[in-house]
Amino acid sequence: MTMIDETHDPARTSWIDSANGHPDFPVQNLPLGVFSAAGEDPRIGVAIGEMILDLRGAAKAGLLDPSWSGALSGSALNDWFGRGAADSRALRRMLSAMLCDESRRAEIEPHLVAQREATMHLPCAIGDYTDFYVGIHHATNVGRQFRPDNPLLPNYKYVPIGYHGRASSVRPSGEAVVRPSGQRKPPEADTPAYGPSRRLDYELELGIFIGRGNRLGQTILIGEAADHIAGYCLLNDWSARDLQAWEYQPLGPFLAKNFLTSISPWVVTPEALAPFRKPMPARPEGDPAPLPYLADDADQANGGLAIKLDVTLSTAKMREAGLKPHRLSQGEAAAAMYWSAAQIVTHHASNGCNLQPGDLIGTGTLSTADDNGLGSLLEISRGGKAPISLASGETRAFLEDGDELELAAHCEAPGAVRIGFGTCVGRVLPAQP
Amino acid sequence: MTMIDETHDPARTSWIDSANGHPDFPVQNLPLGVFSAAGEDPRIGVAIGEMILDLRGAAKAGLLDPSWSGALSGSALNDWFGRGAADSRALRRMLSAMLCDESRRAEIEPHLVAQREATMHLPCAIGDYTDFYVGIHHATNVGRQFRPDNPLLPNYKYVPIGYHGRASSVRPSGEAVVRPSGQRKPPEADTPAYGPSRRLDYELELGIFIGRGNRLGQTILIGEAADHIAGYCLLNDWSARDLQAWEYQPLGPFLAKNFLTSISPWVVTPEALAPFRKPMPARPEGDPAPLPYLADDADQANGGLAIKLDVTLSTAKMREAGLKPHRLSQGEAAAAMYWSAAQIVTHHASNGCNLQPGDLIGTGTLSTADDNGLGSLLEISRGGKAPISLASGETRAFLEDGDELELAAHCEAPGAVRIGFGTCVGRVLPAQP
Repeated sequence: MTMIDETHDPARTSWIDSANGHPDFPVQNLPLGVFSAAGEDPRIGVAIGEMILDLRGAAKAGLLDPSWSGALSGSALNDWFGRGAADSRALRRMLSAMLCDESRRAEIEPHLVAQREATMHLPCAIGDYTDFYVGIHHATNVGRQFRPDNPLLPNYKYVPIGYHGRASSVRPSGEAVVRPSGQRKPPEADTPAYGPSRRLDYELELGIFIGRGNRLGQTILIGEAADHIAGYCLLNDWSARDLQAWEYQPLGPFLAKNFLTSISPWVVTPEALAPFRKPMPARPEGDPAPLPYLADDADQANGGLAIKLDVTLSTAKMREAGLKPHRLSQGEAAAAMYWSAAQIVTHHASNGCNLQPGDLIGTGTLSTADDNGLGSLLEISRGGKAPISLASGETRAFLEDGDELELAAHCEAPGAVRIGFGTCVGRVLPAQP
Repeated sequence: MTMIDETHDPARTSWIDSANGHPDFPVQNLPLGVFSAAGEDPRIGVAIGEMILDLRGAAKAGLLDPSWSGALSGSALNDWFGRGAADSRALRRMLSAMLCDESRRAEIEPHLVAQREATMHLPCAIGDYTDFYVGIHHATNVGRQFRPDNPLLPNYKYVPIGYHGRASSVRPSGEAVVRPSGQRKPPEADTPAYGPSRRLDYELELGIFIGRGNRLGQTILIGEAADHIAGYCLLNDWSARDLQAWEYQPLGPFLAKNFLTSISPWVVTPEALAPFRKPMPARPEGDPAPLPYLADDADQANGGLAIKLDVTLSTAKMREAGLKPHRLSQGEAAAAMYWSAAQIVTHHASNGCNLQPGDLIGTGTLSTADDNGLGSLLEISRGGKAPISLASGETRAFLEDGDELELAAHCEAPGAVRIGFGTCVGRVLPAQP
């Protein structure tokens, strides 16, 4: 279990001025990512204020534990994540000490790069991407559109429902969202037709990166699952609702989802999130207890993630008119998740399926119980029947070409310094001719 | 389109005696794979009779086109597959000439390794694995168990149904099948329990390897899809039916499938299959025509794969008693597939999803219309209600510990030399304690 220690002390400040009071990246956060700058090849870095500390350069200069050099000098975090939780904690302590000790400025400063000069890449070579469905309010809202009286299927409160997604089309924030084409059959049509999606949507999720993996045929005990998680990011599971409705039976979503998945590029570690843990929401009266392989008192007590989630939309017309983005939702991860990240990991490996360092898992769409934090336009517009109105005079049921969507997340707690995830942005481009 | 040429001439023989008359690997086949021998690291080879030609060694000795050396000297076929169909054809012509010309024996023989001395590996680093559902008789048989009057869903004859599988747990033939545990809820139980699957099954499929890929946001035209296929193998989509029944709604199969997928290690190229193409089966009266993006006359005329499929089972008791394996089914791919391999590829990329060299696609279970070639025990035993009897006096509704299952495939046609795929084998081990 990750504990609160001196690295979380709110009194700690960095000699990098932009870190102090930074809404996302104070020295209490220290998320990992992969960046390139000045035409050089991608490398691992740590976000600190408006800067990035180049860990390849720092390792080469002998500033880090020499046994880490191989894993921190590549162009992806897989090897580092595979080293596990103890090394992750040790790196955090070392970085925090370096970045707070003014006397070390001269040796470290040469390895700093301004974020505005850098291009962010995927943090890992993602071997497999799995998407879960643990947002119970989202599952209920979507289920209600099909089954008003019985929105959740009988397995939902026993099984952390998940399915495999497409690894090749996961991209870092900023990737253009080319409107996908596909088969769609409106209810009033007799036959389907192939063409650009008319119901393009987003889904607000958290991404979970696997740290240490498990061998094929081995399981991961629930009490050990937290140590298999390397960190978290924001994830937008772009969805073409018309393709989805027509294709998804009986084997689940496919082309409706696999044209693009966007993630925020910085991986926020479990250590950074330690001050923002809370109990899992109490299961409503009458819900079954988790089966023993998913039950753990410690996880129940602090498996909840007090991560605040924000989604905004701007249309081309809004940007031209200088209007500020429209807030679509504001919510919190902990209140949305029926299953914890540890339960997701343990369930995924419960049949011996091998998880590998750098694998990506989506939580599923995270919607609040009320209407303020719905995680998709499908829910916000009631399946398209209740379009929203924008300050530009436009309305939106689903995404139009030129629309830009931004996910953001941050954590706040009494006695802790605020940390953030940065953003996950995508702008919709017209379908290919 | 791949044409029949002199490399298919039945009169061609190799100076490697074991190739001539070999049921799988005559010089008319020349499948590619990755092997290791004598403690050396894995390398690319070609099966020829009982031998393997080491292509890394052959390239280093200057026996192949020098521009191919990089792609043929690695430990996986991804780079080679990415070079596309023209290089695949050229390599076949060059290998066929070398292996038929007795005068070249001395320079080539040093690069031959006996198959019995070699360990086979996965042919590619599989980026993404997708499983389709194009076996219409299987889809009908399974659908009938749920919906006797209406077994096929309305989308089936418009959409080549597919879903993403797990890449990390794809293994070459021979990998042990550890019985998976998971949640299962028999109809008579009130709540599910976690434990070893009681309904372990196999699924007979073909695997399709992607050659040249497509960029994210780009599609693959149906007339060009065949040139994006690097080759074919056998694929066993091991399935835990009890886990599947309980977990699969609403997002499709997950832990019921991702504990293991086995493939035969030799990739049979489209060139080798050229003499064994036939028309796609005529669509029954009343079926819709494929939508235009999936329609191609040439594909309709020879998109069918005349690949004969065989499945056998041996139990521990049968092996101890020296009984020969029990034949479970005998069928043919062409007759089973409602959608062609080209249609599968074009549909997969029809929303801009990027396919990458070495990606693996399963066809879905290939069952015949009659009862002789059913591709799973779920179908053979009528959902477990009609166990089969074995010569050992045992019965089987699903797989028991110690059972060994073997998939095999070969092609025969008038005027052509028989070629084969080798086998895809797996033996069931007890669940982990």
